[in-house]
Amino acid sequence: MIIGICGGTGSGKTTVARRILENVNQEHVVYLPQDSYYRNLGDMPLSLRHHINFDHPDAFDNDLFVNHVRALKAGEPIQMPIYDYTTHTRRTETRQIEAKPIVMVEGILIFNDARLREAMDVKIFVETADDLRFVRRLKRDVAERGRSVESVISQYLETVRPMHQQFVEPSKRYADVIIPEGGYNEVGIDLITGKIRSQIDIELAKVAGES
Amino acid sequence: MIIGICGGTGSGKTTVARRILENVNQEHVVYLPQDSYYRNLGDMPLSLRHHINFDHPDAFDNDLFVNHVRALKAGEPIQMPIYDYTTHTRRTETRQIEAKPIVMVEGILIFNDARLREAMDVKIFVETADDLRFVRRLKRDVAERGRSVESVISQYLETVRPMHQQFVEPSKRYADVIIPEGGYNEVGIDLITGKIRSQIDIELAKVAGES
Repeated sequence: MIIGICGGTGSGKTTVARRILENVNQEHVVYLPQDSYYRNLGDMPLSLRHHINFDHPDAFDNDLFVNHVRALKAGEPIQMPIYDYTTHTRRTETRQIEAKPIVMVEGILIFNDARLREAMDVKIFVETADDLRFVRRLKRDVAERGRSVESVISQYLETVRPMHQQFVEPSKRYADVIIPEGGYNEVGIDLITGKIRSQIDIELAKVAGES
Repeated sequence: MIIGICGGTGSGKTTVARRILENVNQEHVVYLPQDSYYRNLGDMPLSLRHHINFDHPDAFDNDLFVNHVRALKAGEPIQMPIYDYTTHTRRTETRQIEAKPIVMVEGILIFNDARLREAMDVKIFVETADDLRFVRRLKRDVAERGRSVESVISQYLETVRPMHQQFVEPSKRYADVIIPEGGYNEVGIDLITGKIRSQIDIELAKVAGES
């Protein structure tokens, strides 16, 4: 079963994903963040790399991402790329990921590619007010990434916000379920973990029946 | 467990409620529509009754509704009113409803009363585009209630729409989960039925353990 968790920057979708993982048997879940599939910009001069719009669907290697999701769905292992944010390149080494009954796909633009949407069994959109999302992103980028308030604001107004309006927000229409206000919504998270747990039970029973 | 299903007129909330009921063991579920709790206007001259704003929170006998939800939660039976839409009055007879493990409360304004919200374990809001909701209401009122297009439009603009904007739409913020596009959202309905089924199992096991 493939579960997609989408939402804008600062929506709390990563927190939702982490809370779900904490509440199910992680042994049976693969976690696949879209961020690992940023394009490798190794062939581009470093000065140009910083001008790339990282909030546009084309910033991601969607073909590889789709192939990996489909491979995991077919029960095959993948070599997940390891992305280096400082240089905007992929490391030469990869992470081998074995297929498991549940695949959790997470990212801001995972509902934009029709092939990804078709692969997903449950599509969840985490919805948080735009101003709260900005506040969270501002706090995170300043505290964790050493960015200045001015640079966070200008990036937000120049690319993050327009791309959100153009691509992320409209992709909400593909969601099966919308979870308001991210990581602190215990009831919403409980509904999803319940579904995942029963799906794990079904898959394990199937495997036990086959062996 | 008390489950609230809210949403505007024509949102498909009744279809969602019916689809859920079809997919669980109905023997263990009480269905409580807010519409049954319209105030009894029997003491009001008939000519005045038609001028009542039936989309305002005060159109409902919220005290009785809260008492009944609390009684069912405490395991006690209730006498559910039977409402006559043609005369806007309650019939003298009532329907005896026994308490069951799951109580499903449904209506346009069930998230407006804090006492009701506190009684609910899961709050679901069915979200459908405003124009589609109007189209559905128009078709239903003309086909099933013999209303003219003009009268549906004028009622919609005079009371239904303003009350939706003022009371129904803002109450979405209390939802634990938002289900987009009503009754045809199989995945969203499946998440909720899964939760209800496992809750029924828990309650039945509890009862079996006690006896």
